[in-house]
Amino acid sequence: MNTIKGFRFSTVEAAIKKAGRKDLALIFSEVPATAVAVFTTSTVKAAPVLVSQKHITSGSAQVLVVNSGNANACTGEPGMAAARETVHLVAKGLGISDTAVQVCSTGVIGVQMPMDRVRAAFPAVITGLSSGTLEDVALAIMTTDTFPKLAAKTEQVGGIRYTVAGIAKGAGMIMPNMATMLSFIITDAAVEPGFLDSSFRQAVDRSFNAITVDGDTSTNDTCLLMANGMAGNPRITGGSPEGNSFESALNDVLLSLAKQIVKDGEGATKFVEIRVSGAKNDADAKRAALAIANSSLVKTAFFGQDANWGRIFAAVGYSGAEVDQSLLSLHFDEVCMARNGICAGDDAEERGTAVLKQKEFTVTVDLGIGNSTATVYTSDLTHEYVSINADYRS
Amino acid sequence: MNTIKGFRFSTVEAAIKKAGRKDLALIFSEVPATAVAVFTTSTVKAAPVLVSQKHITSGSAQVLVVNSGNANACTGEPGMAAARETVHLVAKGLGISDTAVQVCSTGVIGVQMPMDRVRAAFPAVITGLSSGTLEDVALAIMTTDTFPKLAAKTEQVGGIRYTVAGIAKGAGMIMPNMATMLSFIITDAAVEPGFLDSSFRQAVDRSFNAITVDGDTSTNDTCLLMANGMAGNPRITGGSPEGNSFESALNDVLLSLAKQIVKDGEGATKFVEIRVSGAKNDADAKRAALAIANSSLVKTAFFGQDANWGRIFAAVGYSGAEVDQSLLSLHFDEVCMARNGICAGDDAEERGTAVLKQKEFTVTVDLGIGNSTATVYTSDLTHEYVSINADYRS
Repeated sequence: MNTIKGFRFSTVEAAIKKAGRKDLALIFSEVPATAVAVFTTSTVKAAPVLVSQKHITSGSAQVLVVNSGNANACTGEPGMAAARETVHLVAKGLGISDTAVQVCSTGVIGVQMPMDRVRAAFPAVITGLSSGTLEDVALAIMTTDTFPKLAAKTEQVGGIRYTVAGIAKGAGMIMPNMATMLSFIITDAAVEPGFLDSSFRQAVDRSFNAITVDGDTSTNDTCLLMANGMAGNPRITGGSPEGNSFESALNDVLLSLAKQIVKDGEGATKFVEIRVSGAKNDADAKRAALAIANSSLVKTAFFGQDANWGRIFAAVGYSGAEVDQSLLSLHFDEVCMARNGICAGDDAEERGTAVLKQKEFTVTVDLGIGNSTATVYTSDLTHEYVSINADYRS
Repeated sequence: MNTIKGFRFSTVEAAIKKAGRKDLALIFSEVPATAVAVFTTSTVKAAPVLVSQKHITSGSAQVLVVNSGNANACTGEPGMAAARETVHLVAKGLGISDTAVQVCSTGVIGVQMPMDRVRAAFPAVITGLSSGTLEDVALAIMTTDTFPKLAAKTEQVGGIRYTVAGIAKGAGMIMPNMATMLSFIITDAAVEPGFLDSSFRQAVDRSFNAITVDGDTSTNDTCLLMANGMAGNPRITGGSPEGNSFESALNDVLLSLAKQIVKDGEGATKFVEIRVSGAKNDADAKRAALAIANSSLVKTAFFGQDANWGRIFAAVGYSGAEVDQSLLSLHFDEVCMARNGICAGDDAEERGTAVLKQKEFTVTVDLGIGNSTATVYTSDLTHEYVSINADYRS
């Protein structure tokens, strides 16, 4: 991982759910950073989401505190008190104001935070800032994830190098708007706040809002971006070559993290890119792509390596997108499975099955009625998904 | 099964997909019957759906021809020709007009109908009308169903007995509006056509449109009702005690069939009734109930007998229904799991787990903000579901 100037990291074992792993972490900027965040659209929001949403309105943040093992969701007023106390412990330990703290939680829903154990983790989690790494934090926020998710990109502006780096956790409950998904992006670039906000939201739409594992949206989803300007570059603004480079780096980092989340989808054995083209408008394109990506029947067929293309047209049919079935075409990678709504030929099945035997492939549906396109990413639905989620808490 | 006057049945082995089972069937009324039907709302409709939709506009039907083993969907103009030819073979064999024939198919999508084998089944399928039963037809339309689905109810009007009987097939792709679901209801009652239509649509809404197995809607869904009047009763009209009895019998038959479909949901081990109360309006109540019923995370928790009630609130949260999380309450049967949005007590988990160990139970969520309610029925998501759908065509 590249160095990102002025950021420090810490992870400790607070034993929030069980002992034996780091589960409480900080990402700290030595100076206040320009910050933007997007949160779950669910109306059932975890306590830390409610607290962080309020703090982010300042447009600035200096530290993130995050725990795994407990989502602090559906915990009522005691949960709010726990989130606020956690914020205050961090603020006090660092000598900053409470509103400069962002707080996130992930884990089981409906169980109160064991605040005695969180309190006991102080001051160790503060003093640990001298030695931690971003990778440590990526490990500490994992729940059913099987690998830590990191991405970074380095760019230059006016001869000065800066880095955009990020981590994420995902696994289950992955669905646009958003997913049980936490993602934290940091950069040492100086970026004009309005441009930071717009480029961040656009990058989120193309990445985290374009992936789906099981169609479930969580109570805790948070994606936070902090830009502390410590690279010392001339401030990046929109509509400039430097702005374009920054946007491109941000898009790359977020898309890389989003794809890692899908690849680590609970029990997933396949990574599938779903492209819909020829839609009447953008909303229809995304609707059709998501209907395919979320169909249990389509996803089990991927797992079974069964070129059952009719299920894909069936999903397009109920998506709500405007469709003329006689104009539909379908490709698995370069293999045409269907055109004009019907089977493309006798050898399509055999050739299509060969594509599905790969670990990664692309499904392209052309609706044939317009010019709009959308791309989403999904995984297959497997025995392992059922096992993981049937036994998650045991 | 009770006798339904003037209806005859036939099933033959046409070997449409493979040999060894009856897969082509007729339901024939000796006189033209008043008929109403609802079809899939998918924009990708199977050829037989397109043909039947046209014929039903006459308000009358005399025979249904149905096959399993091939959905005749995504088959283009050759598929339309196959559906029309099948209709014509039946009409010619019975000496009636083509428009008096309803046609339905279920099975694999995207494969042309083997019309040589369908043709070869004539005249046997016509002559078979002397000996077949409604149970035979229920068996012939099964695909991944593990048992045939039948229901019947007998009522009286003016001292004359009549019967409402029905069969259905379901298993996978079960989702409102509607499901891969065929259901055929017959009655020997004489019923005023407008009242027949309105009571049928209402019964469908409370039954087939209130069940969900995997959230997938199919290309072939059809629910058909034929009333031939051969019981000889005075014609039943709406707003009368006789009308109420008829509606009640129709509701009972459809709800029984719908519940049988859920119980036979692919790989299902649990039957779960989801009740949402206290919603702002009916649409919100149904939205919240369906979000719970369709959540893969909730359904795997049912399979795992894991009283992970937070996932249910999470589903309510993203359903789109108006929610105040501090007012939510949840019961598993009579056990209160959560009230005011938080855990109801230390023993809730143990008592809730005991409920989930049953084969059937009720989940009740009260939103606490209004007076509207909705009830839907669902199953759990199991290893077996994945196996069935990964290997369906092999």
